[in-house]
Amino acid sequence: MGTVQLLNTLRAGYKGVIYPVHPKEKTVRGLRAYAHVSDLPKPVDTAILTLPTKVVPWVLEECGQNGIRHAIIISGGFKEVDDEGKRLEKDISRIAKKYKIRFIGPNCIGVINPRIGFNPTMFPYLHHPGGVGLISQSGTYVTQVLPYLARMGIGFSKAISVGNMADLDISDCLEYLSDDTETKCIALYIEEIREGQRFLDVARRTVIKKPVVALYTGGTSGGAKAAVSHTGSMAGNDMIYDNIFRQAGIIRVYSVEDLFEWAGVLACQPLPKGPKMAILTHSGGPATSMADACTRHHLQLPEFSPDIKKRIQKFIPPTGSAQNPIDMTFVIDIKGMMADMPRLILKDPNIDGLLIHGIMGITWIKNVKEAAGEIHDYFQMEQFIADTVDELASMPGKYGKPIICSSFIDREEKAIAYMRDHNLPNFTSPEKAVRAMAALYRYSLIRKR
Amino acid sequence: MGTVQLLNTLRAGYKGVIYPVHPKEKTVRGLRAYAHVSDLPKPVDTAILTLPTKVVPWVLEECGQNGIRHAIIISGGFKEVDDEGKRLEKDISRIAKKYKIRFIGPNCIGVINPRIGFNPTMFPYLHHPGGVGLISQSGTYVTQVLPYLARMGIGFSKAISVGNMADLDISDCLEYLSDDTETKCIALYIEEIREGQRFLDVARRTVIKKPVVALYTGGTSGGAKAAVSHTGSMAGNDMIYDNIFRQAGIIRVYSVEDLFEWAGVLACQPLPKGPKMAILTHSGGPATSMADACTRHHLQLPEFSPDIKKRIQKFIPPTGSAQNPIDMTFVIDIKGMMADMPRLILKDPNIDGLLIHGIMGITWIKNVKEAAGEIHDYFQMEQFIADTVDELASMPGKYGKPIICSSFIDREEKAIAYMRDHNLPNFTSPEKAVRAMAALYRYSLIRKR
Repeated sequence: MGTVQLLNTLRAGYKGVIYPVHPKEKTVRGLRAYAHVSDLPKPVDTAILTLPTKVVPWVLEECGQNGIRHAIIISGGFKEVDDEGKRLEKDISRIAKKYKIRFIGPNCIGVINPRIGFNPTMFPYLHHPGGVGLISQSGTYVTQVLPYLARMGIGFSKAISVGNMADLDISDCLEYLSDDTETKCIALYIEEIREGQRFLDVARRTVIKKPVVALYTGGTSGGAKAAVSHTGSMAGNDMIYDNIFRQAGIIRVYSVEDLFEWAGVLACQPLPKGPKMAILTHSGGPATSMADACTRHHLQLPEFSPDIKKRIQKFIPPTGSAQNPIDMTFVIDIKGMMADMPRLILKDPNIDGLLIHGIMGITWIKNVKEAAGEIHDYFQMEQFIADTVDELASMPGKYGKPIICSSFIDREEKAIAYMRDHNLPNFTSPEKAVRAMAALYRYSLIRKR
Repeated sequence: MGTVQLLNTLRAGYKGVIYPVHPKEKTVRGLRAYAHVSDLPKPVDTAILTLPTKVVPWVLEECGQNGIRHAIIISGGFKEVDDEGKRLEKDISRIAKKYKIRFIGPNCIGVINPRIGFNPTMFPYLHHPGGVGLISQSGTYVTQVLPYLARMGIGFSKAISVGNMADLDISDCLEYLSDDTETKCIALYIEEIREGQRFLDVARRTVIKKPVVALYTGGTSGGAKAAVSHTGSMAGNDMIYDNIFRQAGIIRVYSVEDLFEWAGVLACQPLPKGPKMAILTHSGGPATSMADACTRHHLQLPEFSPDIKKRIQKFIPPTGSAQNPIDMTFVIDIKGMMADMPRLILKDPNIDGLLIHGIMGITWIKNVKEAAGEIHDYFQMEQFIADTVDELASMPGKYGKPIICSSFIDREEKAIAYMRDHNLPNFTSPEKAVRAMAALYRYSLIRKR
């Protein structure tokens, strides 16, 4: 396990110095290894402990004796398992206090900081750094989700697997990310909060600065039972947590997809000034789905300003609609749909944000050409689409209004990949786009209060 | 547009005879073309009309005169647009009555029947045929969704874009699919139902035979406004529709993803006899998320029977949990996790269905090997995984109990692709798996009443 962690850190391009500690080997993956912590050159900033449970207190003591003041304790087998584990966990807390060591864990998967190539977890980090700071009581939601996050174009600023929280807990990490300038939105996965009042205080201060989204799973009978064996958490009543979140101004979600997708949007899009949305599509079904979801999530669909409406009308064929939602129907006008119309719409003082379904790329044209048995070079078209998407991606910053898109095509369409990788969220269904927009609007209301 | 439709039908391998009708061309895509409907060899089963709006009544009349009794009218520009369109739509209804022509449309995208390679839509059908019969007032949800459905492994038996429903409406199509043996579950996308009582009658009779899932978007102020310009629908109050669905035993959803994903599960998995679920994972976060979602969606997590529990215990390391949910923790035992344990669990009389998160494949191993700079041949391992997945996929049929899985890895992992393509649903998040399981259980309750 230690080897895999080392490999991932090396692969992530960590620029700092790494000292493997190994009882027998002289070198590990080309790095000089040390038999004991006491053999290490000084100073060492952080110790990462991936060891059999019983050895952990002993090695932590050694760390303390040798001036190491920070640790990430990956090893499991502590209070989540049995009484012996509980005793060992108390031991490491006692040792840490003695030497003033602050540590993450035990029973965690580690910490990822992609900007400095720091990733001592079991999984490679596949995406460029982003604005989402994650604090998670599940290591899976730090690591196993990485392929999904890369697919969606959601990047971590820092991701912290807090494990059993024998020392640093969710509130400590929240306080840290609250001041971290690279973190634009904080996502929390919670099975248990220990000091409710302290959490509430920290969260309240944080939410003034940046949005916080939380998934809490320990409050139902099923969740509570699972949480005990997972992190040894004694989870509390769901209603109590719901109240804490509400008081703190934390946006609560009920699925891990919402957690990351809403956090991703909150980290990269400007807040809408009000609930007035425009919908732009070339298909009636998603237009109606988006409009229906808008009403359900307290967003409005006003008329466009008269002069904007007149200018929009020029892009719409007679079978289409220049009302809001705009349905362009089946028209192949990539620049119109993905640049000219969005620009017009965002300029409308009557509109606070834009939802687009059905981003156009080369997939459809390619299908047609393939069906016709024609071979075609898409290089120029791809270039044109990339330029258009680039323009669209610049608009939220330029006009101070959010854009969220959806499409049934995934990353295999380059336009989708390009958008997701350039801070323009593109979800897999129209309703998801609307719900994320509603989260943005909700945070704008939280900020106002 | 007609050319693209022809291309897709040819590409889909339609075995029947196709006669292109074209005013000028002598051949179209290698097929002999005819200048007039009256020139066609007889009999012709179905006419597909993709024409300028004004020409449609005239050509339909010609169809009637030449003995054609079925039509799919793709053309738009009718009652969804203006008064002139309304008049033209009345015209085609009158002509159809005169000649006893039954037709789908106008303003639709066509009908897909993948088993016979029939696909005169604008998009290629990318997946093998399946058990989901779709009736949709949106052409997009018949066609633009195809890449998404292929990704998820959800196949159509038949998909019908009903358009303006000037003749055949949702109830007619529902009656048809109700008797269609290839259709195992019916998915409805509804913006308006015209004759509520008839729909209720047909739906009630259908639900006794097979499950029906419905997405209704026309009942909110936003949805109603969008629906008018889309299909000219005068949508009704959301509560009224909700009551109709409840009375009929139709399972209502609020997103297009749920529509297809629940329908996909209902079409391929046996119904659970009760609400007692087992959760099997190797990670605590998803275990807790699934357990929490189970409670929220009225599913239970009982203890395993004592003898089964004893046998499960053998597969679990000391840091894991043989409780329900089972958390195997980070153990690489593909056969244990994906075959031996599921078999044990499904044999337990105390368990009605199984949820698995974190299907194991070669992705992780591949990442580790790549990080280590090792080149490796995965052929044997892939074969082993395919065999294991095959075994898992056979279990729902064998034990009469459903299995639903989730993973954060997508189709790039062959194990996931293989599962999805062999009727073993694998969703993108643990909560989605649970919600689909809850839909299965709900239908089992509907059947019982």
